[in-house]
Amino acid sequence: MGQRLVPSSVLRSMLYLLLLIPVLAQAADALPSWRDGPSRQAIEAFVSAVTGEGSPNYRKPAERIAVFDNDGTLWSEQPLYFELLFSMAEVKRLAPEHPEWKTQQPFQAVLEDDHKALAEQGMDGMLKIVAATHSGMSTEDFLARSRSWLASARHPKTGRPYTEMVFQPMLELLDYLRSNGFRTYIVSGGEVAFMRAFAEEVYGIPPEQVIGTTLAAEYKDSDGKPIIERLAKLAHNDDGPGKPVSIEAVIGRRPLLAFGNSDGDLQMLQWTMAGEGRRFAALVHHTDGQREWAYDRNSNVGRLDKALDAAGQQGWAVVDMAKEWRRVYPFDKE
Amino acid sequence: MGQRLVPSSVLRSMLYLLLLIPVLAQAADALPSWRDGPSRQAIEAFVSAVTGEGSPNYRKPAERIAVFDNDGTLWSEQPLYFELLFSMAEVKRLAPEHPEWKTQQPFQAVLEDDHKALAEQGMDGMLKIVAATHSGMSTEDFLARSRSWLASARHPKTGRPYTEMVFQPMLELLDYLRSNGFRTYIVSGGEVAFMRAFAEEVYGIPPEQVIGTTLAAEYKDSDGKPIIERLAKLAHNDDGPGKPVSIEAVIGRRPLLAFGNSDGDLQMLQWTMAGEGRRFAALVHHTDGQREWAYDRNSNVGRLDKALDAAGQQGWAVVDMAKEWRRVYPFDKE
Repeated sequence: MGQRLVPSSVLRSMLYLLLLIPVLAQAADALPSWRDGPSRQAIEAFVSAVTGEGSPNYRKPAERIAVFDNDGTLWSEQPLYFELLFSMAEVKRLAPEHPEWKTQQPFQAVLEDDHKALAEQGMDGMLKIVAATHSGMSTEDFLARSRSWLASARHPKTGRPYTEMVFQPMLELLDYLRSNGFRTYIVSGGEVAFMRAFAEEVYGIPPEQVIGTTLAAEYKDSDGKPIIERLAKLAHNDDGPGKPVSIEAVIGRRPLLAFGNSDGDLQMLQWTMAGEGRRFAALVHHTDGQREWAYDRNSNVGRLDKALDAAGQQGWAVVDMAKEWRRVYPFDKE
Repeated sequence: MGQRLVPSSVLRSMLYLLLLIPVLAQAADALPSWRDGPSRQAIEAFVSAVTGEGSPNYRKPAERIAVFDNDGTLWSEQPLYFELLFSMAEVKRLAPEHPEWKTQQPFQAVLEDDHKALAEQGMDGMLKIVAATHSGMSTEDFLARSRSWLASARHPKTGRPYTEMVFQPMLELLDYLRSNGFRTYIVSGGEVAFMRAFAEEVYGIPPEQVIGTTLAAEYKDSDGKPIIERLAKLAHNDDGPGKPVSIEAVIGRRPLLAFGNSDGDLQMLQWTMAGEGRRFAALVHHTDGQREWAYDRNSNVGRLDKALDAAGQQGWAVVDMAKEWRRVYPFDKE
């Protein structure tokens, strides 16, 4: 018996394989930004249960509908909903054409950067600003405006484009669900055309799977060409009880999985979980004041109070962002 | 040289192959009920153009949206829209709970089978009957009612279930488009939940690809269980200019192909054709008084007048049912 029991070439191959193990493990992990916490375990257990052939909870792909809120669930929503920041920028841009806004709320508050006065206008004021800046033009023109702002605007805290302030773990979750035969939908209070301006590129969610607040619209002739003109009139407010209503109207099936982050998602989660068979509801809990923002029961934006109580009572997953997410944004280092 | 130049076994094989030719040809024909007329040629040329790799008109699958009207396009609509026949049956069924209907139009006309008085109530009367019989219950309950009627009701002329009075050539066309990467949508004046009661089974069109007239709805609690209650209030009339508006709201993409049969489809076809690149618009022309019904410019149901003029001016396909369709219904013999 000599010193070299194993030829060096075999040793080299074994060493190479050992080096490969972490790479292979990472390649097999569809959710690398999720720590091995309770939320990740609950998600994986649910997906196995409804997709495993022969599982008593098996659902065919046609039934695998997953719905996601957008603001605070797929991307950040502080210090204000990003679409509201867009609308405020548009109010300023369009102000020369609207001298009356100087003395008319909520526009005056926007023009004077009076956040206190603006907050006093509440949801009504917000909808007025959205309606005024999202209407009076064709769908194509609005799409171009939205994309122009998204391309140039930067977030006041991070200095990043808003479309980079999406949650890396949620991007992975969307992909993971799709690779398991789910169709992923957005069901959000955001205006539908604004979200469609980036949802396909950023989330891989095509326009027909984006559901949101809608304005009335009119089919009309514009110099011999038909256009669809957006009107300054709310057609559907896709918040709270409006979410299950729009899910039923547009999809016509009850989701198997619903993900939200605020009281505005409560009814969507309730509606999902009231269906028969195994279903899954979860909330993103903004616990990370370091990497993102920490807020819940007392926040004006994305208040999470009743839905947090419901989650506790019903056993819904509550994602502790600080503890369960390795990264928050794609640009974060681990 | 002998008499038998070819061995008999080879002759037998050749004979067998000759016999196989029509079988093979039919297997290769995705549209066997379409005669080789101008409409079929136009459809095949369009599909080749937008799906052929390297074609200047190539569209990726995500963009291949095809929209179809339902009444008169996918199934018959005489002597009255089938959903109106359902609504009238429901008025009679529910009459004991509504004594006031005896002296209230349009309900009185339905209860007295007074078709003249009913016709005088026009579109408004029709919508009232639809709203009254389609509301005041949960979506699930309405689905059950629709299915119960569809299963038991028979057409006054053919004696067939209504779901058998679908157009065989259109079923083939839906399959043909789907096998070429299209997503097929219904965009119809019919109420959306009524159409969803049979669209998946009959047309292979899933609920989320059915767009139609919608009623307002309310999310509410019913004995501790959330339900979506249908309200007797029109939310969207998916007819005429309402069609491109709902296409934009729900799909958020302009279709590549649109198929209709009446003036109520005119704007949907215009909107489709006003998009860039190669697109396709067609009308089913009810020319077959033998196998189906013959009607166009002067019909109260499915009037085809302005859209027929537009088709002539714009070069849209007009399907001559009598000449171009080998079969009308699946139960027809060739």
